[in-house]
Amino acid sequence: MEIFRTISEMQEWSDNIHQKGDRICLVPTMGYFHEGHLSLMEKGKKFCADLVVSLFVNPTQFGENEDLDSYPANIERDISLAEKKGVTIIFMPDKREIYPCRFQTYVELTELPTHLCGLSRPVHFRGVATIVTKLFNIVKPDVAVFGLKDFQQIQIIRRMVKDLNYNIEIVGCPIVREDDGLAMSSRNAYLSTEQRQSALCLSKALKKVEEIITTGETNANSIKKELEGYIESFPFTKIDYISLCDSETLEEINDLKALHSLLIALAVYVGQTRLIDNIIINPAQ
Amino acid sequence: MEIFRTISEMQEWSDNIHQKGDRICLVPTMGYFHEGHLSLMEKGKKFCADLVVSLFVNPTQFGENEDLDSYPANIERDISLAEKKGVTIIFMPDKREIYPCRFQTYVELTELPTHLCGLSRPVHFRGVATIVTKLFNIVKPDVAVFGLKDFQQIQIIRRMVKDLNYNIEIVGCPIVREDDGLAMSSRNAYLSTEQRQSALCLSKALKKVEEIITTGETNANSIKKELEGYIESFPFTKIDYISLCDSETLEEINDLKALHSLLIALAVYVGQTRLIDNIIINPAQ
Repeated sequence: MEIFRTISEMQEWSDNIHQKGDRICLVPTMGYFHEGHLSLMEKGKKFCADLVVSLFVNPTQFGENEDLDSYPANIERDISLAEKKGVTIIFMPDKREIYPCRFQTYVELTELPTHLCGLSRPVHFRGVATIVTKLFNIVKPDVAVFGLKDFQQIQIIRRMVKDLNYNIEIVGCPIVREDDGLAMSSRNAYLSTEQRQSALCLSKALKKVEEIITTGETNANSIKKELEGYIESFPFTKIDYISLCDSETLEEINDLKALHSLLIALAVYVGQTRLIDNIIINPAQ
Repeated sequence: MEIFRTISEMQEWSDNIHQKGDRICLVPTMGYFHEGHLSLMEKGKKFCADLVVSLFVNPTQFGENEDLDSYPANIERDISLAEKKGVTIIFMPDKREIYPCRFQTYVELTELPTHLCGLSRPVHFRGVATIVTKLFNIVKPDVAVFGLKDFQQIQIIRRMVKDLNYNIEIVGCPIVREDDGLAMSSRNAYLSTEQRQSALCLSKALKKVEEIITTGETNANSIKKELEGYIESFPFTKIDYISLCDSETLEEINDLKALHSLLIALAVYVGQTRLIDNIIINPAQ
């Protein structure tokens, strides 16, 4: 495994791989690896022998009052875990390499970011689309793997890939959970022992919604109300959003009947920590 | 010469060229070729044997009240001229191929479009940056050639290439002029015989500014005032802007002294037709 810190050595390596007729897989990350990240790397290895993991805490996707400065990091552990997973290259640039003086070009979508997390994080998806575009041009992957926990993110990237005509296959990986159901996240490190218990409200609420829908309930507002009461019964919680929406357009829906693919997505503050979780349900089936 | 109308056949051709280790040059155009376009193709041929000319009247770079619907076209003539210039591929997609249903991803710069033409054409450079990004991903060029008449455009594309990490060399070509000095433009076709005479105000004003600067004048406002009076002395004219600015940042300057590279740029309506022209002067030399 090699570690690259400059754009030029990364691009040169990728050009050489393509010259040989081989394919490249990219797993973009912000580091502090957990089982979720490792599952993306495992999936990536199935697509291409040459697997690049980028490790960059991207400042442009954090809002002014968000946790950029406190985002957890453990680079030595990350490097050792990546090596065990058979990663070929870690691309680990510093901020000035990625955002040079007078940087001013952004990639923005007009519709998909107006829903879910985009509402409380107005610059987030502009930052995500921009850094992913840059990574696509730097690493030049044939396949890129993203986690389905950030469901809105992967839908935005799929749309961007289509709209900007990247010839890159986007692969989604299922959410990896702790034994008790909590979706793995680098931000779980922020939780106290008591908050960690309350954090189960997300995965439990999603289980609950599955049960409610099985009973035949099709009114989205009734379901939201019930989930709201349920989540608020856990200490330290503050709901950011509860969304039942079309998994393609992310538009809120009122009636579950006849919908092809329903996304149920939650964002909840537990103390100061904002956590997200989601499931996809096909009510028509 | 071959004509491609789909993104997939264009991308496949480009991948094959790169597999062979050859390089590709792109000349992006909106068609209705004049000597200016042909000079871009000639320049392009010097860089790469494989020359792609794209021909697409890009709707997203036109404002609502602009001339999208009347933009001049003569595709058969364009094809014949391109063939004579040794063009390898004409890429000529239709609008639906480039902007499919639910298209929503745009490339935007935050600083450079806030000057010059960006002021009276607020969506223009977003459209330009977006279509050029798409063409870069579709044609995958190693070199791309643009005319210096659209000076702000080429500076925006250079910045975008740097910011988004495209490995593409951007080459600028000097303005090609009619015998009497008028900068060549597809929009010159809109001018009546009388307006055609008044259109000379742009190139003549630029000559005049060179003379003024030679006399030692360094106050930008005095120069602008003089040019304003001069241009308004021509019938049918309405000034959009007269700019003396830093050719790198496009920021207006007050004092020409010590400036490294000065751009003098004009936009003038002659009747309904908006014309632009510019020169670069290095006053410090």
